[in-house]
Amino acid sequence: MKGLVHEDFLKKADLLRPRLIESVRRPKGIVTIRKDERENVCVEAEEPMDVLKDRTLGKGERICFDFGDHYVGYLTLRISTAGSPPDAPLYMKIRFGENAKEITERAEDYDGWISSSWIQEEYIHVDVFPTDLQLARRYAMRFVEIQVLDTSRKYRIRFDDVSFRAVSAVDMAKVTPLSYGDKLLRRMDRVALKTLEDCMQDVFEDGPKRDRRLWMGDLRLEAIANYETFHHNDLVKRCLYLFAASRLENGAVGACLFTEPTVQVDDTYMYDYALFYVPVLLDYYEASGDMSSARELWEVAYRQLEIGMDALDERFLVKEDNTAFLDWKAGLDKQAGAQGVLIYSLRCGIRLANLLGYDENEMEEWLKLTIQAAKRYLWDPEQKVFISGKEKQVSYASQVWMILADIWDKETNRELLKRIMELDPEMNMVTPYMNHHFVMACIQCEEYDLAMTYMKNYWGEMVRDGADTFWELYNPKNKNESPYGSSIINSYCHAWSCTPTYFLRKYERIWRSIS
Amino acid sequence: MKGLVHEDFLKKADLLRPRLIESVRRPKGIVTIRKDERENVCVEAEEPMDVLKDRTLGKGERICFDFGDHYVGYLTLRISTAGSPPDAPLYMKIRFGENAKEITERAEDYDGWISSSWIQEEYIHVDVFPTDLQLARRYAMRFVEIQVLDTSRKYRIRFDDVSFRAVSAVDMAKVTPLSYGDKLLRRMDRVALKTLEDCMQDVFEDGPKRDRRLWMGDLRLEAIANYETFHHNDLVKRCLYLFAASRLENGAVGACLFTEPTVQVDDTYMYDYALFYVPVLLDYYEASGDMSSARELWEVAYRQLEIGMDALDERFLVKEDNTAFLDWKAGLDKQAGAQGVLIYSLRCGIRLANLLGYDENEMEEWLKLTIQAAKRYLWDPEQKVFISGKEKQVSYASQVWMILADIWDKETNRELLKRIMELDPEMNMVTPYMNHHFVMACIQCEEYDLAMTYMKNYWGEMVRDGADTFWELYNPKNKNESPYGSSIINSYCHAWSCTPTYFLRKYERIWRSIS
Repeated sequence: MKGLVHEDFLKKADLLRPRLIESVRRPKGIVTIRKDERENVCVEAEEPMDVLKDRTLGKGERICFDFGDHYVGYLTLRISTAGSPPDAPLYMKIRFGENAKEITERAEDYDGWISSSWIQEEYIHVDVFPTDLQLARRYAMRFVEIQVLDTSRKYRIRFDDVSFRAVSAVDMAKVTPLSYGDKLLRRMDRVALKTLEDCMQDVFEDGPKRDRRLWMGDLRLEAIANYETFHHNDLVKRCLYLFAASRLENGAVGACLFTEPTVQVDDTYMYDYALFYVPVLLDYYEASGDMSSARELWEVAYRQLEIGMDALDERFLVKEDNTAFLDWKAGLDKQAGAQGVLIYSLRCGIRLANLLGYDENEMEEWLKLTIQAAKRYLWDPEQKVFISGKEKQVSYASQVWMILADIWDKETNRELLKRIMELDPEMNMVTPYMNHHFVMACIQCEEYDLAMTYMKNYWGEMVRDGADTFWELYNPKNKNESPYGSSIINSYCHAWSCTPTYFLRKYERIWRSIS
Repeated sequence: MKGLVHEDFLKKADLLRPRLIESVRRPKGIVTIRKDERENVCVEAEEPMDVLKDRTLGKGERICFDFGDHYVGYLTLRISTAGSPPDAPLYMKIRFGENAKEITERAEDYDGWISSSWIQEEYIHVDVFPTDLQLARRYAMRFVEIQVLDTSRKYRIRFDDVSFRAVSAVDMAKVTPLSYGDKLLRRMDRVALKTLEDCMQDVFEDGPKRDRRLWMGDLRLEAIANYETFHHNDLVKRCLYLFAASRLENGAVGACLFTEPTVQVDDTYMYDYALFYVPVLLDYYEASGDMSSARELWEVAYRQLEIGMDALDERFLVKEDNTAFLDWKAGLDKQAGAQGVLIYSLRCGIRLANLLGYDENEMEEWLKLTIQAAKRYLWDPEQKVFISGKEKQVSYASQVWMILADIWDKETNRELLKRIMELDPEMNMVTPYMNHHFVMACIQCEEYDLAMTYMKNYWGEMVRDGADTFWELYNPKNKNESPYGSSIINSYCHAWSCTPTYFLRKYERIWRSIS
């Protein structure tokens, strides 16, 4: 694959590789997970772990371990046998569930468009006992279910030890818990922190189950949550250098990067994700004060704005067939939202140029032109909402991004926010990622009560649904929804969902004042 | 598990551990294996290996490699990708077939009593490419089929190299091919040699697919074939010391031994297999002239005879409910056959005592008593055959072992051999192991033409059926027969089937003279 490689940046990124913190975890108990008549997933405490030494398993039998919380790392099983000497291999199936629901789902039933290879399950033979079986792959899990497919008629197996070497670049224990708020709020903060901890590995990953990879959209939200919590600024810096080191041919940063076996930009370009390099760099500079890195990477950031501008039509509008992501909502027209992202990023670029002492005149000109175009072609003065694409689609995403682009005065923005909620168009928001931007828009409009209520209704409902970490996808009205064809492939610890801890800590004074 | 452990013998066995000879093998071609309308297995040459570099595989696609011969060892796959950078793991299923038939059978359909964990297949995830995937387990195979369960929509995989590190304690290339006979005979010898080569590993195994373990019955036949071919006497010596080192509580040698992670006798005692320690030691001494080992192990051998005698009833008859194996034939009564094995082993004991300069008087007495009992209670003077058990069952096994016990004069034995073939009782022979003893009985009766015809009809038919190595089980009249519920679990390279090379080489002068 062609592309642009910057060896110096690669070296810098490599020097910033974090040393992972390890902790050994053991199950809290043995559980049974099943679906009741109403298809609700039930986790029934079965036995404490100390019965394990007397429990043996034979063909067809299962055992499910509950580690009590979500972890990312490596499983080790110490297995011995009971009965005659083992005269045949053990064959077993091991399944990992980030939550209990995954344990009730069958890989065989999955027929979606995302690769089934993400489903965390293994078939394993063991030839010699006793064994300390260390699974080589990394898993994201709270539950581990083991099914004995076969031993032989002459022996059964026993688990002498079950342990999980959890890894992360950071340690939650070092972050002071939220010092205010009710139980729900504190739990939301805790779950958000855990989400972020488990996603902070060798890079900021989107999700440790899937895709286990550095995506720009996820990085942006993880980074701002990190500045309020773990303060691991070097990990953000590493990711900024990685994105700068391996780029697409025209200098655009990719939507995501592979880091193994070598750093390699994906061939996916997303209009919004590339532009986000600018706010990520700005946020990093503001959090760290690291002028030299910001200056070194400025050209990369500026190039993203140039590419963003080059892609406009003659009216200075983002084209209808642009590659922006915005949200997983099927049928969402991305034109207005992407225009919002462009304007938002231009503002970040201007601010960063100011801070670094660079000339911002050209960007100011771009800002003027793109705002003008947005007002002229995307604003519907009748409906008083932004419309997108040929079909003049009205969506949450378009309004939210145009509010964040801040092209009207505060009062108009506030009215727009209320209006879109009243209209409640079919083109709603399906990811925590888009919902984050909605809350951000509420805060920008100083609609703090609304922001808090919304947070509690959205992330709070996930907590009430038993989340240990926040999920990639969540629709409170259709909890089984997945853009992938089945929820078995969903990621249940997903970086872009971790921002409650950002909101709760960054705007602590506000929440305290309105409570 | 309780038992008798002899540390000195363990140490001696350990010093005799062979250094395995390795050779790297690569597939001869890509094939398609299918069943035709008549359920015949067809192997269709598809493509030569040099097309591999241009061939990529995606979800649901398969490829089957033919290594051209049977090997035992370790598979390595060098896999790279084509298309976009791999954005999801590869998930694949790898199946190993000792012969083509196994590739057409499905593990899911197996429901027999032997553990399905013996079926040679693996499900494997690969996270990072390119990879040199070295499978940790050892396999016995000629064919390897790989099915891509999933990659992603963005990439396909390519096999840059497929190699198999074959291992054995011996090297067939060092054995002179059979110097006489027709094509079939030479092929039978070659297939037998290959069988033996692939079973000679860290110990003499019964079968490298299943059970991969040292069984006494298999060892005995492997050892005599080895003396005519590979002359690896130390491997026999090692196995004799192993059996002596870890025994059942009363000093009996077990039917088989486990050698990993430590040497451990199985808790299975078989009347005939324990007695075979005596002929194995005698054969070893006669082949090697190793007087000191034979003397050191004499007590172990003698103890097997004592235990064999102790188990008799007051008439000096093996009891009806004895634990002898003899053959897999369902319903076979073992009394007469086991009596034959006892007498045969007593004769070996007496001979060995003579050679070592020990007193044989007690054994002579035992021999007299057991022969007398056999003649009085197991011989049916009306039918002129040996009968076995309450039901007075007439079987091949009983006659064959009584002929090998040599209790009648040569003419009577010869008549008995003819008679049983004329009677052709329903209690026939199903394993190559039992068939070996039939040929042995023919040779003892100097029925050389019969022996040769029989060998060509039995092992020769396996060759005509495409055997690269001789099989654990073979019934020319029902080629799908398995005592295990399905032929997918059968071993197709099985030690006890390797004796054509013994017969063809040991009795070369005879075959030359009658041809």
